[in-house]
Amino acid sequence: MAKLVFIRHGQSEWNLKNLFTGWVDVNLSEKGEQEAKEAGRKLKEAGIEFDQAYTSVLTRAIKTLHFALEESGQLWVPETKTWRLNERHYGALQGQNKAEAAEKFGEEQVHIWRRSYDVLPPLLSADDEGSAANDRRYANLDPRIIPGGENLKVTLERVIPFWEDHIAPDLLAGKNVIVAAHGNSLRALTKYIEQISDEDIMNVEMATGQPVVYDLDDKLNIVSKEKL
Amino acid sequence: MAKLVFIRHGQSEWNLKNLFTGWVDVNLSEKGEQEAKEAGRKLKEAGIEFDQAYTSVLTRAIKTLHFALEESGQLWVPETKTWRLNERHYGALQGQNKAEAAEKFGEEQVHIWRRSYDVLPPLLSADDEGSAANDRRYANLDPRIIPGGENLKVTLERVIPFWEDHIAPDLLAGKNVIVAAHGNSLRALTKYIEQISDEDIMNVEMATGQPVVYDLDDKLNIVSKEKL
Repeated sequence: MAKLVFIRHGQSEWNLKNLFTGWVDVNLSEKGEQEAKEAGRKLKEAGIEFDQAYTSVLTRAIKTLHFALEESGQLWVPETKTWRLNERHYGALQGQNKAEAAEKFGEEQVHIWRRSYDVLPPLLSADDEGSAANDRRYANLDPRIIPGGENLKVTLERVIPFWEDHIAPDLLAGKNVIVAAHGNSLRALTKYIEQISDEDIMNVEMATGQPVVYDLDDKLNIVSKEKL
Repeated sequence: MAKLVFIRHGQSEWNLKNLFTGWVDVNLSEKGEQEAKEAGRKLKEAGIEFDQAYTSVLTRAIKTLHFALEESGQLWVPETKTWRLNERHYGALQGQNKAEAAEKFGEEQVHIWRRSYDVLPPLLSADDEGSAANDRRYANLDPRIIPGGENLKVTLERVIPFWEDHIAPDLLAGKNVIVAAHGNSLRALTKYIEQISDEDIMNVEMATGQPVVYDLDDKLNIVSKEKL
């Protein structure tokens, strides 16, 4: 038996401004910090003790993890950061206001980009200023795997190898694991472990800063799921 | 050529109260947080880009690292926490006021405990409430290597294997490394890389929150050393 906790980062500065964020490295808002600390207090109250922590290479998820661990008295827990847990890359929509994008491209098109499982957003090329190819944190990646834009399907395909290589082995070894990440990288993990269909997954929402606790058996079947 | 940066944690709550701290997991003071953030701004100004971060399993060093990385825009840098970078374990003196200890044991005895290279402080046994043997973060260590008290010599002997196995290989591979740790674990590293004698090392002081930057050649010889 092992415990697996998912936590979506608290509110970010761009959630507040209603901008498409994706891989843009925006900070938590003041409310987002409070959400992360509150998550830590709930984890402490629930008595959950972690052996390993995973997060993305984006500040808002890393800080959420740090606040949650610190408030629960576990800032010393080993921590691994990986681009594979990053938010879905929103391509050329990144930095655009969601309402303005709806005016520009039409409500229906934007709805499709946001809610379809396998339609890609308009892509960024490696030459674009905002491309992840120009960001030092991705310098060790084969340029061919740096996305210019993702749907949930593509997001899932880069998240799951990390699950299989790192998170699942930890859980199988009986370790309790916390994953602090993003709406869509956590949606991908949730789809995979709960075996949710392509259609249904788009309606699954995770609240910011709310720990979701799974008890897993020694085959990683879900024994229980609880939102704190 | 690689850059190596040492940073001693900012002021802690027990520095303020003049207590022997050692492995007790006290927090940074408000001033300590500010020192760590200021260190991050200096690192940013100096344009130092890290590839790897190391710290202890004690909150005050971990938070110092996080503040410094965040302020310099590098919170995403891979981070490894290890007990081997912990502060010197101060044995049964931990939690005692330094002035009161001087009254109880005599000024000279306390001076010897603080300033000799190889005299051990009074030890804690594994049964003592404050023993690290009762702390979950050390649960994966062979009980025989959990100290009940250390001098600088013993501290150095447990710090250097980590240097040789992790930090030195990173530097040899050309990676820029930051080590956020403690007065005595950093003193041990400084002694080792600068080849300082047992006598002289006890007079080496590191200021809290001040980054010390080494440029190292491809044999790890020191080319330059600068305090920011």
